[in-house]
Amino acid sequence: MLEVKTPEEVLRLIETEFRTLERTENVRLEEALGRVLAEDIRAAEYVPDFDRSAVDGYALRAKDTFGCSDAVPAILKLVGEVKMGESAEIQVPEDACVYVPTGGAIPPGCDCAVMIEYTEDYGDGTVGILKPGAPGMNLIFRGDDVFPGKTILKAGRVLAPQDIGALAAVGITEAPVRPRLRVGVISTGDELIPADQAPGSGQMRDVNSPMLAALLADFGAEPVQYGIVADDEALLREKAAAALQSCDAVILSGGSSAGVKDAASRIISDLGELLLHGIAVKPGKPTILGRAGNKPLIGLPGHPAAAFFVAKLFALPLLARLEGREERSYPVRARLGESLGANHGRMQINACRLATENGELAAAPIRSKSGLIAQLAGADGYLMIGRDCEGLPEGAEVDVYWS
Amino acid sequence: MLEVKTPEEVLRLIETEFRTLERTENVRLEEALGRVLAEDIRAAEYVPDFDRSAVDGYALRAKDTFGCSDAVPAILKLVGEVKMGESAEIQVPEDACVYVPTGGAIPPGCDCAVMIEYTEDYGDGTVGILKPGAPGMNLIFRGDDVFPGKTILKAGRVLAPQDIGALAAVGITEAPVRPRLRVGVISTGDELIPADQAPGSGQMRDVNSPMLAALLADFGAEPVQYGIVADDEALLREKAAAALQSCDAVILSGGSSAGVKDAASRIISDLGELLLHGIAVKPGKPTILGRAGNKPLIGLPGHPAAAFFVAKLFALPLLARLEGREERSYPVRARLGESLGANHGRMQINACRLATENGELAAAPIRSKSGLIAQLAGADGYLMIGRDCEGLPEGAEVDVYWS
Repeated sequence: MLEVKTPEEVLRLIETEFRTLERTENVRLEEALGRVLAEDIRAAEYVPDFDRSAVDGYALRAKDTFGCSDAVPAILKLVGEVKMGESAEIQVPEDACVYVPTGGAIPPGCDCAVMIEYTEDYGDGTVGILKPGAPGMNLIFRGDDVFPGKTILKAGRVLAPQDIGALAAVGITEAPVRPRLRVGVISTGDELIPADQAPGSGQMRDVNSPMLAALLADFGAEPVQYGIVADDEALLREKAAAALQSCDAVILSGGSSAGVKDAASRIISDLGELLLHGIAVKPGKPTILGRAGNKPLIGLPGHPAAAFFVAKLFALPLLARLEGREERSYPVRARLGESLGANHGRMQINACRLATENGELAAAPIRSKSGLIAQLAGADGYLMIGRDCEGLPEGAEVDVYWS
Repeated sequence: MLEVKTPEEVLRLIETEFRTLERTENVRLEEALGRVLAEDIRAAEYVPDFDRSAVDGYALRAKDTFGCSDAVPAILKLVGEVKMGESAEIQVPEDACVYVPTGGAIPPGCDCAVMIEYTEDYGDGTVGILKPGAPGMNLIFRGDDVFPGKTILKAGRVLAPQDIGALAAVGITEAPVRPRLRVGVISTGDELIPADQAPGSGQMRDVNSPMLAALLADFGAEPVQYGIVADDEALLREKAAAALQSCDAVILSGGSSAGVKDAASRIISDLGELLLHGIAVKPGKPTILGRAGNKPLIGLPGHPAAAFFVAKLFALPLLARLEGREERSYPVRARLGESLGANHGRMQINACRLATENGELAAAPIRSKSGLIAQLAGADGYLMIGRDCEGLPEGAEVDVYWS
């Protein structure tokens, strides 16, 4: 008999029981946003690939300006202008300078750039330098930003827009990423009908299939819908086995009846190994987890709010484990708008809305009598109250996890 | 002559100068994730549409159990079982009960459900109730969660997975959303080459086009690439006019040369009205903003890190304004890993990485000598130092904006 596990134990179980799938596919940079890097990315070249100026001004030899000042400018011969995008092949003799725009290439022999604000063009082919340069001043040297072999991004990174920019900068227009995980979604329960049908008495629309599909898509996985399966163990087993065949993971969400719950755990035991039967969270306790090879079978509670929380807290980290995805989910700190009770001997999860009040972020817990829509619609995130905490007073600082 | 504006002034300018485009299109729920609701969504029906049990147990009349206890159970006749997904048409006489699963319909006449834990099935057609019920106990009434006319989600909401679930629950399988904004992206500068070409001396790859396209896609807009335009005012004007014709907004990002910057502001003045010439942020000062009708023309700095920050801080809020999108970007609180200087008379923006250290979130500022990749690659977010602040000490609490 498997015992109910704490959230920490479940996360450890995920680490020990599942391994990262070492799979790679190459995608074009335009398609790489949100994908998980499969390998470290190293630069193969220098950025910049030439010494460039960090200012609009004059490239020159610092030593030719030592000792100059407003009162006693260094008078240098202007021998040309560097154009953006062109190499700087101008020969600059001693006591001479070249105009260079920000980002322009520094001609050989010059060792600094003096900002135009500290110069005066006399219009007769000479320029007065009013402030001495120093070697390296206002220069960005070849390879200052990146050099061959430098690690740009690490494996596991979920590619963000800034990363796409960095890859473009070093000419990497294809990236090795993890193939998207295919995740089968099955809803079970005799009372369920598809969302586009009108419920008769005793019937409820299937919320979990579209919600979990959206959650998986948002995460970057590919949901594969297997629809609603009635409370028929043979049928459910058949669907689960089919899903397991063609997917990397399968999420069942159970109906409310005891029959479905037991069937799901029997099916998971048959198809693989049952690892977990119950998590000490409220809502979300009737969660089961199994493993067929390295493929997880996750049985979520039927109640949509519970299914949502458990999917966020445990199913997504499990999928992240399969991808070797770097965790980047940080809570925001907010002040609790009203007191919130808890007294269940297990961690309590509560949806909330966020709003800025008097320059401070306020979290308003969403209360409902098992109301699925009230708990979900418009929620900005959720907060957690530890199992040993009997509740939080109004004004308490809380960590809110976005969703 | 337009003065450099503070960030707050720029955000106010956006509010006063641009209005929300009252456009709507209907999308199927499967396509609605991340889209912006164009209208409030009201329910047209009851959820649940019947009185249901919140527990596994027996539906009965509370008054038949008043005064019962472990020692003196109320003995009720078991007259049937409610099945999941079926209406509860069983007639329940006085002093009788019906088995009902969690979520099952409550038969007419019954006014509460007693948990199975507080009952005993004697196996002879009678059930002992060991704890008295009370009217309404363990029931979810018709419309408890949602009733016709109740607002489920408000206009401006960016649809999250939980919202998709809520819409499915009330049978809304198509949602009225804002059409995606089409945003033209133009990079300018003689030194720029496409990312898939090898730079010659003096040339740099165009980072801003792919980076801004990814940022726009991530935001939920549709980027339209107009490629790289050399520093030729007539050509740039032609491209900008073409982009303005077929897009809702146009983002130019300027090369480093003074010529390009001036050209962009002349072009914006010609095509519409120049509203802004410079923002008091570092990096990001050379930002310009214009308006042609209600279409914004945004001129970003050429340096990719500056372009990135300005796009996040000002261009995306401007696009959100055009959509009437509800702002949902909250910073995370972190501790600064090392001191960070600032002394520029304008707000300083600094990229940083986040990591959890000793259970606390730590922000490591990314330092670089104008290094574009170092500032972008792997950055988790950015922090801002106010214009009147001379720097932050190690260990200071900072707000980090995700990216």
